[in-house]
Amino acid sequence: MSKKIQVCLTPALIDLYDIEQSIVVVIDILRATSSITYGIDNGAEAIIPVAQVEDCLNYRDSGFLLAAERNGEVVAGYDFGNSPFSYTREKVNGKTVVLTTTNGTKALHLAQKRAYQVLIGSFLNLDSICHYLKSQDKNVLLLCAGWKDQFNLEDTLFAGAIVSNLRQNFEHFDDSSVAAEDLYALAKGDLRKYLHKSSHSHRLAQLNIEEDVVFCLQLNLCKTIPVLVGERLVALKTN
Amino acid sequence: MSKKIQVCLTPALIDLYDIEQSIVVVIDILRATSSITYGIDNGAEAIIPVAQVEDCLNYRDSGFLLAAERNGEVVAGYDFGNSPFSYTREKVNGKTVVLTTTNGTKALHLAQKRAYQVLIGSFLNLDSICHYLKSQDKNVLLLCAGWKDQFNLEDTLFAGAIVSNLRQNFEHFDDSSVAAEDLYALAKGDLRKYLHKSSHSHRLAQLNIEEDVVFCLQLNLCKTIPVLVGERLVALKTN
Repeated sequence: MSKKIQVCLTPALIDLYDIEQSIVVVIDILRATSSITYGIDNGAEAIIPVAQVEDCLNYRDSGFLLAAERNGEVVAGYDFGNSPFSYTREKVNGKTVVLTTTNGTKALHLAQKRAYQVLIGSFLNLDSICHYLKSQDKNVLLLCAGWKDQFNLEDTLFAGAIVSNLRQNFEHFDDSSVAAEDLYALAKGDLRKYLHKSSHSHRLAQLNIEEDVVFCLQLNLCKTIPVLVGERLVALKTN
Repeated sequence: MSKKIQVCLTPALIDLYDIEQSIVVVIDILRATSSITYGIDNGAEAIIPVAQVEDCLNYRDSGFLLAAERNGEVVAGYDFGNSPFSYTREKVNGKTVVLTTTNGTKALHLAQKRAYQVLIGSFLNLDSICHYLKSQDKNVLLLCAGWKDQFNLEDTLFAGAIVSNLRQNFEHFDDSSVAAEDLYALAKGDLRKYLHKSSHSHRLAQLNIEEDVVFCLQLNLCKTIPVLVGERLVALKTN
């Protein structure tokens, strides 16, 4: 087939796309999809994304680890929040984590309703994701989680990294994929420096998570691709 | 005051922005806002944007010129469509034109409900728009009409041209304005060539409006800024 790649710049636009037969890659670089990638790669049995902090409470007696964050900070009383440094092998290996985040979970749930398959993408597993998308006979939608339904730079840059990688293997590209690819070409020499221009970056600076940002911009630290199966994110078996 | 500039990449996102005290610049480069700019500059008394082709019929006995377009083509029985070449001085001087377009009118009506002031922007009046925005003590929202609520390159590039021009006069820029500015910097050397990469461009090529596209990408052919007053777009008096 003649394959198509599109970039949905915020979850608020997801209804414009016909994704019933598409693979959707959900992108929330700072920090949900980076932490999920790292956690699954470090042996977490599953990560369960939920929409509201309150939903986490339903799992209180399950023995699962509970992770909750609002506006970039750990919610009081939870095991941890959204920092990738909470998802090390010693903390999550063999465990199930229940996770709620500001933007990423929302995007996941919107995609799950209609898509053929929903994957988790981050700079940490860029090559694995691209290798898999090349091997499948499916259209691709790259779904940026954004910030409160608005466009953000870091998610768009990662979408552009995928587009750039898939350029030779797909035939159709929408305007937003062209834009994302060009922005990534501008930024890739120093992603951190580029993001200093961003409003999101200023906000993140206030939250004191500079180490997280640097961590999330590393390429190909992980090989695993998390995939949504029912309500659980687990490692995709690609053989 | 410390002034803010934001870029709303499609009309579907307009509700995310607080625009009650902002000047909104509506952008539909191919071709509605280019034709409106050219028409008002060529002495049209007013241009009335309407949402539906059927709404035009209410003006049938008014003596106004009726312009209607759907999917890039003139609707049968109307005086003309959306091509800037229909808005020459000999055709529109002293006349009122009723206009409906696929994307531009929708964006205009969404902005009109809430904004402090609604202007029409295009490459044709870039410098005039920027000069005016610098002189006002107001925040600015650049509203891209897009294509059926999706992101498009040409409207984003023009938003970037404005951001670039206002960089020294505003203090706050959102992520989409940073992206738009960088894309414009990439494209400005040859806008037409850059747009050949775009899906919209392929679609426009099928409609055989290459001359219109070239026309709409000219900088500063006009001095006039159309402004929405009630239901009518008229020339802004800037003194």
